Amino acid sequence: MRYQLYYWPSIQGRGEFIRLALEDAGADYVDVARRPRGMKAMFTQMKRNHVFAPPFLRAGQLVIAQTAMILHYLGPRLGLAPKSEPQRLWLHQQQLTISDWLVEVHDMHHPIGSGLYYEDQKPESRRRAEDFRKSRLPKFLGYFERLERGRSITNLELSLFQMVEGLRYALPKTMRRIERKYPKLVALHDRVAARPRLAAYLASERRIAFNQQGIFRHYPELDA
Amino acid sequence: MRYQLYYWPSIQGRGEFIRLALEDAGADYVDVARRPRGMKAMFTQMKRNHVFAPPFLRAGQLVIAQTAMILHYLGPRLGLAPKSEPQRLWLHQQQLTISDWLVEVHDMHHPIGSGLYYEDQKPESRRRAEDFRKSRLPKFLGYFERLERGRSITNLELSLFQMVEGLRYALPKTMRRIERKYPKLVALHDRVAARPRLAAYLASERRIAFNQQGIFRHYPELDA
Repeated sequence: MRYQLYYWPSIQGRGEFIRLALEDAGADYVDVARRPRGMKAMFTQMKRNHVFAPPFLRAGQLVIAQTAMILHYLGPRLGLAPKSEPQRLWLHQQQLTISDWLVEVHDMHHPIGSGLYYEDQKPESRRRAEDFRKSRLPKFLGYFERLERGRSITNLELSLFQMVEGLRYALPKTMRRIERKYPKLVALHDRVAARPRLAAYLASERRIAFNQQGIFRHYPELDA
Repeated sequence: MRYQLYYWPSIQGRGEFIRLALEDAGADYVDVARRPRGMKAMFTQMKRNHVFAPPFLRAGQLVIAQTAMILHYLGPRLGLAPKSEPQRLWLHQQQLTISDWLVEVHDMHHPIGSGLYYEDQKPESRRRAEDFRKSRLPKFLGYFERLERGRSITNLELSLFQMVEGLRYALPKTMRRIERKYPKLVALHDRVAARPRLAAYLASERRIAFNQQGIFRHYPELDA
């Protein structure tokens, strides 16, 4: 099966959580919008399939959207999820909590409107980021630090790697100060980064660098 | 199977989407936190099962959280979802889009921090609500108006009823002005409200009234 992933071509964003799964599994996939005329193809498919927002995935006749649901679908097919129903539900529940977390990361720099520029919502961003750093970030990190995960690597572990990686980019000062409180997450991050296929991907040109158009953005005034 | 639902006892909130499904199906369930010593039982279960946030559901040995995932689980069991995998995924995808929408409804009155009072983020709320009314609300309403749903009533239709109902409470002026652009959603709302078990529920004391602690809140300064 050749999967077709549709996502914005110049950012990691939500699509990266799916790229990491496909890459770690060595799956056959096309990152459609990064190819010539790919953006046009993406908009055509979005309209045809009434997709609310990227990312979305084509797998044969199936077209599915929503990051966590795409991973829920791919997990057992890529060897990145258990196959029993209760375990799959548990994993999906954790992945949905990561989706919630990611909205809050995004809203640090877009607390007023996702269609407005950061520059048009800077004072509000400062307040929101302060609340995020002091209240929400420790809540999410603590939750996942204490989560009993077992030893196998699934979508969830790949996604937690990406959260740590992204937060280090966006909030370097904060993360340097607090990371030692979350030793299991840091160890997990390192373990995932060392997986051969993932390490090769991260070192390749396929891995888009973090930048100021993505979900994780580094604005020094939002860090402390 | 007697289901045990755990959710804040004084608001509709996210739990209401699950209550509507259980009520419409005539399911056997207990709304645990609304019983004597129910809040204590809820916190005990949250801690024991490492639940990030209510609502969560106990179904035999299974404990599951995340509103959309609970509905994904219950759907086929309550006769409120198709049973084929592609159709269930499609339905879940729509339900996840409703979850995204609901976060934006909530953030109208909490754009800075969910742990702060509305009174501590009023200027920011005004700006966020304006963006929501002008940009996000038409996008979501238009998306669901144009979605091809078929005739059967599933979780999704019950949830769309709740969105229309909640938005009419929170933004009465706005909804009076724009509703005629979404005739299918309005007709769907009325059709769901007329279902016998649901109508009985809505008229009962089990239906908590909308109020200023829930997700849908009416602040006249946020409406226009």
